[in-house]
Amino acid sequence: MLAANPVLAFDYFQPLPKDVPIPADNPQSKAKIELGKKLFFDPRLSVDGTQTCNGCHNLAAGGEDGRAFSIGHNGATTRRSAPTLWNIGFQTVLYWDGRARSLEDQFVDHVADPTISGFTQTDELIARLRKIPGYVTSFKKVFGTEVTLASAARAVASFERTLFTPDSRYDAFIRGEKKSLTEQELRGKELFRTVECLSCHFGVNFAGPAPGPALGMGDGFYELFPNHLGTEYDASHHIADDQGVFEFDHDPGHKRLWRVPPLRNIALTAPYFHNGSARTLEEAVRMMAKTQLKKELPNQEVDDIVAFLKTLTGKRPVVSLPKLPDTSGSTIFP
Amino acid sequence: MLAANPVLAFDYFQPLPKDVPIPADNPQSKAKIELGKKLFFDPRLSVDGTQTCNGCHNLAAGGEDGRAFSIGHNGATTRRSAPTLWNIGFQTVLYWDGRARSLEDQFVDHVADPTISGFTQTDELIARLRKIPGYVTSFKKVFGTEVTLASAARAVASFERTLFTPDSRYDAFIRGEKKSLTEQELRGKELFRTVECLSCHFGVNFAGPAPGPALGMGDGFYELFPNHLGTEYDASHHIADDQGVFEFDHDPGHKRLWRVPPLRNIALTAPYFHNGSARTLEEAVRMMAKTQLKKELPNQEVDDIVAFLKTLTGKRPVVSLPKLPDTSGSTIFP
Repeated sequence: MLAANPVLAFDYFQPLPKDVPIPADNPQSKAKIELGKKLFFDPRLSVDGTQTCNGCHNLAAGGEDGRAFSIGHNGATTRRSAPTLWNIGFQTVLYWDGRARSLEDQFVDHVADPTISGFTQTDELIARLRKIPGYVTSFKKVFGTEVTLASAARAVASFERTLFTPDSRYDAFIRGEKKSLTEQELRGKELFRTVECLSCHFGVNFAGPAPGPALGMGDGFYELFPNHLGTEYDASHHIADDQGVFEFDHDPGHKRLWRVPPLRNIALTAPYFHNGSARTLEEAVRMMAKTQLKKELPNQEVDDIVAFLKTLTGKRPVVSLPKLPDTSGSTIFP
Repeated sequence: MLAANPVLAFDYFQPLPKDVPIPADNPQSKAKIELGKKLFFDPRLSVDGTQTCNGCHNLAAGGEDGRAFSIGHNGATTRRSAPTLWNIGFQTVLYWDGRARSLEDQFVDHVADPTISGFTQTDELIARLRKIPGYVTSFKKVFGTEVTLASAARAVASFERTLFTPDSRYDAFIRGEKKSLTEQELRGKELFRTVECLSCHFGVNFAGPAPGPALGMGDGFYELFPNHLGTEYDASHHIADDQGVFEFDHDPGHKRLWRVPPLRNIALTAPYFHNGSARTLEEAVRMMAKTQLKKELPNQEVDDIVAFLKTLTGKRPVVSLPKLPDTSGSTIFP
C-alpha cells in the first residue's frame, strides 16, 4: 500500500489546479454527478434515516462536522475525526490511515460501517434503494444496470470530485497577485518553508503529491505522527495512542504512520488531528512544530504561520440540495 | 387557544396562493431570510452538532424525515411525527396540538426542547451563536441588535415562509386546466367531497382556513381524532393513546383534539398521523374514513382518493445550502 519510493522532491508551493484528476474507469457525467449528489444527501442510506454523508461532511460548512469525533448510527462515536471533503479529489488515498485507495473504495467501505450507516449488510441498503423508483431509473440511465453498491460508489465519488474550492488568497498569490497576501501572511508563508512544515505539507492540497506522474491514485504519502515520542502531548493530547496505519495492516514498521492530511480550508476544520485533540489552529501549529520537528516556536511565529494557513481558505461553490426521489405514499423505514 | 367559532363554511377547494401571509411584526427581507436559512441548516444549534432543523424537516425531500418519530439529541425519540415544512406558512397554528401560535413561537419552543437540540438552557445556545462572528454581524445588520433568541426565531420563521410548493396538478386544475387531472383523479376529487374528507381538509393547505379574514394567525382549526372511538385501529394503531390538545392544556373538553393536518405533498410524507402508525396513504385514507366518518370504503374508492391526493404534490423549489459562518481556526464544541 505504501509507495516504494515516497516522493519528497516536488514543486512545494502549488496552486489548486482547475480540474481534479478523474480516474479512467469512472469518467464524470452530469447525470452521474447528480445521482451521486442525491445519494450523498439521502438519509435513507442510513438504516434509521438519521445519517447522511453531508451530516459529517457538511458542505454548508468546512466539508466536515467541526467535532473531534463524529456521531454515527445510534450515538456511536467514530474512532477518528471526519476529514473535509473539499478538494478531496486531489488525495491519492483516503482515510487518516490511507486504507482506501480511491473515493469509490472509500464509499463502499464507509456505508458498510455499522457505526456510521447502521447497516450490517450492504445488501440491505441496496435492497432498499431498489425500492425507490427514481433511483432504479437513474442507475439504469447512468450505468445501464440495476442499483449496485459499486455503481453507487462511482456516482458518489463523481460528485465528491466536484467539491473543490478555488481562488483562495494563497492561490491568487501563487498565480502572481502579489498583493493578495499581507506582510504577516508572507512572513508566515516563509516560516512555513523554513520551519519545514513544507517538508510534508506541500503540493496542490498541502498533503504531498496529488495523483499524477509522481504518485498514482492509491499510492499514499505518509509520515510519522508523532514523529518524536516523548513530548508532553503524548499524555495531554493522547496523540500516540492510535497507531495509524499499523492498526490497519499490523506491520510493525507502520506504527504511528499516517497519511499526510491536506491543509486547504484548514481554518474551517477545527478541531485538529486524527483525534481532534487540538482545539485551535495555533495549538495545532505549536504541536506540529514540537512533535514533528522538535522545535519550540515563539508565539509570533505561530501567529504568522496561522495567518498564512488562513489564506488557504478557498471559495466554496454554492451547493444546491438535490430533490430526492420519493416512495409515493409509503414509507421505506421499518 | 381554540377559536370561539370554528369556521366550517368556506371555499373548500382552493389553489395555493402566490404569497404566504406575512405577520405585520415580522416583515420579510432578503437578508433576514438568508440569515434564517443559515440557522436552519446550522448543526451548531444543537448542543453536539448532530441536529439541524433540516435533519428532521428535510428540504431535499418532503420537508420531513419519513420516520414515524424523529430521532433527536442523543438518540431521544420525539413524541410525535415531524410534520412537513413545505407550505407551513399557511398554517394558523403549529405542532400537532396547535400549541404554538406562530412559527416564531414554535422555533423558540423547539430549540429549547432538550430532546431535540440537547440544550437545556437556550442561553447556552445564544451564548454560542454570539461566538460566531458572522452571526454577530448578520444579526446586527438584520435586526440592529446582538444575537437573541427572539431575533433568531424571526429569521428562521421568515425563511420557513419561503417554503412553498406551487403548481401541483391539482392547482393547475383549480386554475382551469381541466386536463391536468386524469379520470381516476377526478373521481377521487369527487369522492374526497362526497365521502366528506373535505369537511375538515379544505382550504389552501387542506387544513382548514389559512390566516386571513376567517381565522387569524394563532386561531387553530381542530378536529377529534379518532372521532369515533372503538374501531380496531384504537388497538392496532394506538391512535387514541395520545390525547392531543388535552395533554397540553389539560382541558377535559379537549381530549383527542388535534389541529387538522395539511394534505399538500402528502404523498411525500409517509408514514401518517401524529404517531406515524399508517405506513401508506391507502391505509391512512381507509383509517380516516372509518375513524372519522364511520365509513368502510371499497378498495376502488380508496385508490381513487389516493390518486387524487397524489395530485397535491407541488413543485419544490431548489434550495441551495447556505454558507455557514465559521469560527476561524477554532472549534465551538465543548
